[in-house]
Amino acid sequence: MSKVKAYGAQASDANLEALDIERRDITANDVKIEITYCGVCHSDIHQVRNDWKNSNYPVVPGHEIIGKVTEVGENVKNFKQGDLVGVGCMVDSCQECDSCKDDLEQFCEKGATLTYNSKDKHLGGHTFGGYSEQVIVDKDFVLKVPENIDARGAAPLLCAGITTWSPLRHWNVKKGDKVGVIGLGGLGHMGVKFAHALGAHVVMITTSPSKADDAKELGADEVLVSKDEDAMKKQAGTFDFLLNTVPVGHDVNPYVALLKRDATMVLVGAIEPLDPVHGGGLIGGRKSIAGSVIGGIKETQEMLDFCGEHNIVSDIEMIDMQNINEAFERVVKSDVKYRFVIDMKSLKN
Amino acid sequence: MSKVKAYGAQASDANLEALDIERRDITANDVKIEITYCGVCHSDIHQVRNDWKNSNYPVVPGHEIIGKVTEVGENVKNFKQGDLVGVGCMVDSCQECDSCKDDLEQFCEKGATLTYNSKDKHLGGHTFGGYSEQVIVDKDFVLKVPENIDARGAAPLLCAGITTWSPLRHWNVKKGDKVGVIGLGGLGHMGVKFAHALGAHVVMITTSPSKADDAKELGADEVLVSKDEDAMKKQAGTFDFLLNTVPVGHDVNPYVALLKRDATMVLVGAIEPLDPVHGGGLIGGRKSIAGSVIGGIKETQEMLDFCGEHNIVSDIEMIDMQNINEAFERVVKSDVKYRFVIDMKSLKN
Repeated sequence: MSKVKAYGAQASDANLEALDIERRDITANDVKIEITYCGVCHSDIHQVRNDWKNSNYPVVPGHEIIGKVTEVGENVKNFKQGDLVGVGCMVDSCQECDSCKDDLEQFCEKGATLTYNSKDKHLGGHTFGGYSEQVIVDKDFVLKVPENIDARGAAPLLCAGITTWSPLRHWNVKKGDKVGVIGLGGLGHMGVKFAHALGAHVVMITTSPSKADDAKELGADEVLVSKDEDAMKKQAGTFDFLLNTVPVGHDVNPYVALLKRDATMVLVGAIEPLDPVHGGGLIGGRKSIAGSVIGGIKETQEMLDFCGEHNIVSDIEMIDMQNINEAFERVVKSDVKYRFVIDMKSLKN
Repeated sequence: MSKVKAYGAQASDANLEALDIERRDITANDVKIEITYCGVCHSDIHQVRNDWKNSNYPVVPGHEIIGKVTEVGENVKNFKQGDLVGVGCMVDSCQECDSCKDDLEQFCEKGATLTYNSKDKHLGGHTFGGYSEQVIVDKDFVLKVPENIDARGAAPLLCAGITTWSPLRHWNVKKGDKVGVIGLGGLGHMGVKFAHALGAHVVMITTSPSKADDAKELGADEVLVSKDEDAMKKQAGTFDFLLNTVPVGHDVNPYVALLKRDATMVLVGAIEPLDPVHGGGLIGGRKSIAGSVIGGIKETQEMLDFCGEHNIVSDIEMIDMQNINEAFERVVKSDVKYRFVIDMKSLKN
């Protein structure tokens, strides 16, 4: 295999050679970042394991990247050495299509370049993510991270955070709205924090009554156990918005029944077939089921700024790079509150 | 069985006794209507045959009613003897809930009183529909029918018409939008006419290439055969709005693929489970699947007024009451262009 030019690099600088990866040079529009922390997203595991049958090995995962700027290209005016920055799920897009012009690079009509395992349309090769010591990223895809929040907990904001923030904003969740967050994991716990901070009455909807105390600590006003049919019936037709973070196909009909007339349930996790949706459940109240994926760069910056103002970060468990395989196993079993973050110093061990 | 007080009456006045039905008296708020025409809706058949297991026999179907006012109660100011009027799917609602206050009586929180087979919450008994010589209806549920349009073709506007008009308006279909209408039957043919009249670029989406000429005559600019995978692929991601009139559960995923980012497909027919919806199809473009049912009274009047201005009626086939069973069979086989309307004079034969 010939060497591929890399945005990032897998594991330590020391083993680039073994992986047949060559770092690319910084261009005039690039920001070079020394990575301090990187969150562990469930999709990292899917990609590493080739669950989606599109992995380009070697895969260097990681798209919840926090780091310090070490160098900037000559065209870069808004970042300087030492800045605390973040990189999320995208590192490039066409910048010319309607979606890009609308600040919705995640829907780039030519396909956004993802932070890892994605073809680099401009420089060739494919991209490598944040489980690495360094990353070089176009300035337009680098985010400023507020200095006042815990940088470790900020890492998951770049994916879990924006994935839940974007639909709450797009569907205009506001003070006093009754918002249900379905599923309490990496996404769900951010959904609860954001909806609470936006002034909504937040109901954590879960299959597990044992999660009630945790949900309330995160900001939920109520917990609704979805297996309790009586409780579900009592809340039927009362929700202004539902954020559905369940990551697999499931029966959404009981949740549709919770929506008010004209209200929407947005899927952010289930990128697979749902159990049969009953058309009558939508028709009977002019209800909607929609989907949403991450968010644009402008919106991601707005989220980070909001997190700075409201002192919001993800609840995390820190790990060393050496424990990544164990962490993957625990993510698969949902055994983490609520996100693992890798301390990149450990790469030098 | 004791006599039930009836809004309408099944078949001719001559057989009310045999059916154990007694006409109720007109109240101060009522309009008494001599029915001239009544459309045949597929739901009439479901109700007559107790397909939904909720039929209250005797059932007098019919909710696409056109007639002349013969008498008005003392509080009725906006109708007078001789007026051409219509009655649709509802004859009463609570008038107090948020939905009623929003002119969306179809979503009345206490349940709208349907034109037939529905409990009358104010006067007792249950309601009887338009396959009848007369009907007595509260003034707030009587519509003015423009005198310049064909009254026979106007009958189906009261159900098929408003069912397609309401979502086109609610989702703000406008000049230049690319709108797909899925399914060419009673609902679909009205969807094509309305979308065309609203200035949209209308694509008839059908499984049957044989319907192309008819669709174009109705106002479609293009016909897309949904079984033609290449043609479907070519139009992927290009539709601003899809009106899905398919009356049964089906695979909606190929239609979701046709939607632009942020666009919506609205179900108006399928009040049953759909084939599994792929969550990724919604998530990948922030797309929505929604439902819609008939429309409020105010919106129904707006539709009728629009039909008057644009000279729009349903394409119909007239029948006598004596041929209703044959007509039912043909509706079930979709063998009608596009709606049967009963000439109520035939009741006196």
